[in-house]
Amino acid sequence: MAFSEFRPLDEKSLIEYIKAVPALYSKLGNNLDDLKVQEVGDGNLNFVYIVVAPGGSFVIKQALPYIRCIGESWPMTKERAYFEAVALKEQGRLSPEHVPEVYHFDRTMSLIGMRYLEPPHIILRKGFIAGIEYPLLAEHMSEFMAKTLYFTSLLYRSTTEHKRDVAEFCGNVELCRHTAQVVFSDPYKVSQYNRWTSPHLDRDAEAVREDNVLKLEVAELKSKFCERAQAFIHGDLHTGSVMVTRESTQVIDPEFAFYGPMGFDIGAFVGNLILAFFAQDGHADQVNDRKVCPLF
Amino acid sequence: MAFSEFRPLDEKSLIEYIKAVPALYSKLGNNLDDLKVQEVGDGNLNFVYIVVAPGGSFVIKQALPYIRCIGESWPMTKERAYFEAVALKEQGRLSPEHVPEVYHFDRTMSLIGMRYLEPPHIILRKGFIAGIEYPLLAEHMSEFMAKTLYFTSLLYRSTTEHKRDVAEFCGNVELCRHTAQVVFSDPYKVSQYNRWTSPHLDRDAEAVREDNVLKLEVAELKSKFCERAQAFIHGDLHTGSVMVTRESTQVIDPEFAFYGPMGFDIGAFVGNLILAFFAQDGHADQVNDRKVCPLF
Repeated sequence: MAFSEFRPLDEKSLIEYIKAVPALYSKLGNNLDDLKVQEVGDGNLNFVYIVVAPGGSFVIKQALPYIRCIGESWPMTKERAYFEAVALKEQGRLSPEHVPEVYHFDRTMSLIGMRYLEPPHIILRKGFIAGIEYPLLAEHMSEFMAKTLYFTSLLYRSTTEHKRDVAEFCGNVELCRHTAQVVFSDPYKVSQYNRWTSPHLDRDAEAVREDNVLKLEVAELKSKFCERAQAFIHGDLHTGSVMVTRESTQVIDPEFAFYGPMGFDIGAFVGNLILAFFAQDGHADQVNDRKVCPLF
Repeated sequence: MAFSEFRPLDEKSLIEYIKAVPALYSKLGNNLDDLKVQEVGDGNLNFVYIVVAPGGSFVIKQALPYIRCIGESWPMTKERAYFEAVALKEQGRLSPEHVPEVYHFDRTMSLIGMRYLEPPHIILRKGFIAGIEYPLLAEHMSEFMAKTLYFTSLLYRSTTEHKRDVAEFCGNVELCRHTAQVVFSDPYKVSQYNRWTSPHLDRDAEAVREDNVLKLEVAELKSKFCERAQAFIHGDLHTGSVMVTRESTQVIDPEFAFYGPMGFDIGAFVGNLILAFFAQDGHADQVNDRKVCPLF
């Protein structure tokens, strides 16, 4: 079964699709007996299926032409799957131990087949909320960031390679615009999709909206985000884009990747660590009082 | 006569070429009688022909696949003519009074036909050396820079338009690399094409090469030049890229154009004004002692 046009898959048509694609079918030992397909709809943007058979496993991620968690009212190019596939391959080449392998990419179907990060891998944010410590996390994430940022910057590459890839990822403009809006614009004004714990944080949200010095600083950062093609950045490197066990750290979901300022990745990740640290109190219970929890 | 392959023209084949191109031929009133063709080989990079007939005139500029003033030992893509033509049209759209009109572009032949800036237009640098004052120059150049830089920046344009054009001009990488080398690297080290008044300035040149604080500052500027796609810059805006009369100011030769930091254009032009100012002493004579010459 080959598709000449984009078609959203469901659990049934997905099985037909797998059967027609040797790169996927062979990962299951060419045998669909006792196949289990599970849609894990906790993503914000895409449909994600976990496919497990006795002979093997993988994950299928399909992008639809809108943001899943908001609906068709916020359209978003399904070409983001193309940029995600290129990013996964490039980051995987530079930091293979911390990026899941891509088995298959279908541009027409906006579909990526990649390694299933089996249990006990969980999303890092959930691990932090559960109070789990990750002794290797700092080393792994430093390695991922150092390798993917340094080796795609002009500190390492020729201007020819650099400008070629900058040009290609200029095509990911829709997702960059989304980031610019939700990171550098919306939080500082009244905006439809803003959310905070109300009424407890109403005054804090208002204080942010009225801080003109802060807004000038943020405008400066926004212009760097839009203009400075320093290195190939992940673009969405928060604790929801990392899956972990105590031994393994895997960076996923680079659909927002483009050539931008290194500080955007580094700052987003460190900022999320700080948020997780200060949220520990709120997750304390009798089993784990979180008083001596370094986390990372 | 149509060319399916690139061929360098000479004064004779140029006439055949003009005859076959209505956009050029009509500019001469479709009449080649009393035609005058003059190659004005004072450019560093290209061949430039002034074509004048009783019925009209234009300039033909053809790029060869190397730097003319150095020779075939320094190859340079003739696709620079494409980027120059696009830049002339874009800057001409934004600042029509200060950019010569493009009549014809032939990508295969790397050839641009454009308005002939008739006498008394001269290269601004030569005007400064002759001690001529240009009372409207500051206003004209400010207008050219303000319009071409502001209207191509994210202060005015959408991110979609901006990234589309950034991507296109990533293709002009060879000329950007040339600028990076001759502006940000060569002057600070021993390098083949460096030139200064020797032995008078030997100590000054050496002082520049040994100033590590300066070199760090320049490295920072170089990285902004290569990374920051702030606006569509001319890329070579010195007093040799401007033709003037007392009433008219025309900016030419934008083959180094790309999306870079605005400060590169502004700084290059102001820097050249400062050089011209301090060079006045050296050009003084009995007719013009240059003591009360503001120039601009």
